[in-house]
Amino acid sequence: MSLISIPIVRDVLEESNARAAENRAIFDQHGIFVVNIMSSPGAGKTTLLEKTIPLLKARGLRAAVIEGDITSTLDAGRLAPLDIPVVQANTEPFGGDCHVGSHLVQAAFKHLPMDALDFLFIENIGNLVCPAEFYLGEDRKVVTLSLPEGEEKPLKYPLMFRECHLCLLTKMDLAPYLDVNPNHFEENMRTINGNLDVIRVSVKTGDGLGKWVEWLLKRG
Amino acid sequence: MSLISIPIVRDVLEESNARAAENRAIFDQHGIFVVNIMSSPGAGKTTLLEKTIPLLKARGLRAAVIEGDITSTLDAGRLAPLDIPVVQANTEPFGGDCHVGSHLVQAAFKHLPMDALDFLFIENIGNLVCPAEFYLGEDRKVVTLSLPEGEEKPLKYPLMFRECHLCLLTKMDLAPYLDVNPNHFEENMRTINGNLDVIRVSVKTGDGLGKWVEWLLKRG
Repeated sequence: MSLISIPIVRDVLEESNARAAENRAIFDQHGIFVVNIMSSPGAGKTTLLEKTIPLLKARGLRAAVIEGDITSTLDAGRLAPLDIPVVQANTEPFGGDCHVGSHLVQAAFKHLPMDALDFLFIENIGNLVCPAEFYLGEDRKVVTLSLPEGEEKPLKYPLMFRECHLCLLTKMDLAPYLDVNPNHFEENMRTINGNLDVIRVSVKTGDGLGKWVEWLLKRG
Repeated sequence: MSLISIPIVRDVLEESNARAAENRAIFDQHGIFVVNIMSSPGAGKTTLLEKTIPLLKARGLRAAVIEGDITSTLDAGRLAPLDIPVVQANTEPFGGDCHVGSHLVQAAFKHLPMDALDFLFIENIGNLVCPAEFYLGEDRKVVTLSLPEGEEKPLKYPLMFRECHLCLLTKMDLAPYLDVNPNHFEENMRTINGNLDVIRVSVKTGDGLGKWVEWLLKRG
């Protein structure tokens, strides 16, 4: 069994990386800065985008979103009021994949006005494990980790924190109601990845959103 | 590519189900009630077990835990003060699998005193997607969903809620600080699975733990 399956896994990864390289070339050609946002379910990815896009728009910057989900168009629906190009990319027709694949990104961005974009956000499926394994052609990988998830998560899901360039520590407004210390989150992240940027954010109060937009403006 | 990979996937599932059937026979032989607990990272699985085990012990019931993680022994360490048999089962040596497999359960329970147990809890890896796909030989599948994750999660991750027998809606103590309505969580769950039992729990205040223990005592 394992002797047979190993070459198949390699083929899948090779195929995935080939599609990602094609995506990368297209993004470069259009000068689009592409951010792959990953996290557990409910860590605040969509809400972050709801607040971020208007801040970019206010600066005359044009953004689009590829909403990755297994099923449903709920998240794309939430972004509709922003009046920007949004593509809902569901993995259900691809076997219910637990991550957004580079082929799905490729299928999705064909529906976007690529010559009229500065930023493209790929909101990955809520999963702190599998999405970390796949390069989609993005410029930067960002993980959002929310305070209620607990301080030790970087130690338990190290690949995600090793692969990402930035962690947004979200739901900071809940700090008074939780038995957690934001410093411990950051210490655990540094244990895994000494180069990881960290920005503490509360989308509810707006704290930290300015720093996040600055990070985007200087393109990570 | 796809023509080659399809039979391999079938083989993997067949192999997985064969191991699960073996597990099931062993559990039956020893009369152990086995619960596979799944959720997003940080939804409160370990904390739930920390509070549940003493309540079972107080009734003279003997429990053990298989702690599934990709890496680290943090969760097993947290359960050590309970003075029960705990096996840490890490998937890192198995390629960093994103879910606990039936072969891993099999490797783990060989370290447990199977003839001296009433309950076995398998704490799966924090992942609301992949673990739902795999039968481990358990009696019941339970998902913990925490209030901060948001009301729409059952609609976005339907397989988990379709496969489970019970959902523990956790972190109820945070309700006053979140823009969510517990009724909407339940409505969304019923849309996916009309037979799903739901118990609202706050491990912090203890609310709902009695109902959960009752559910365990009547073996789901």
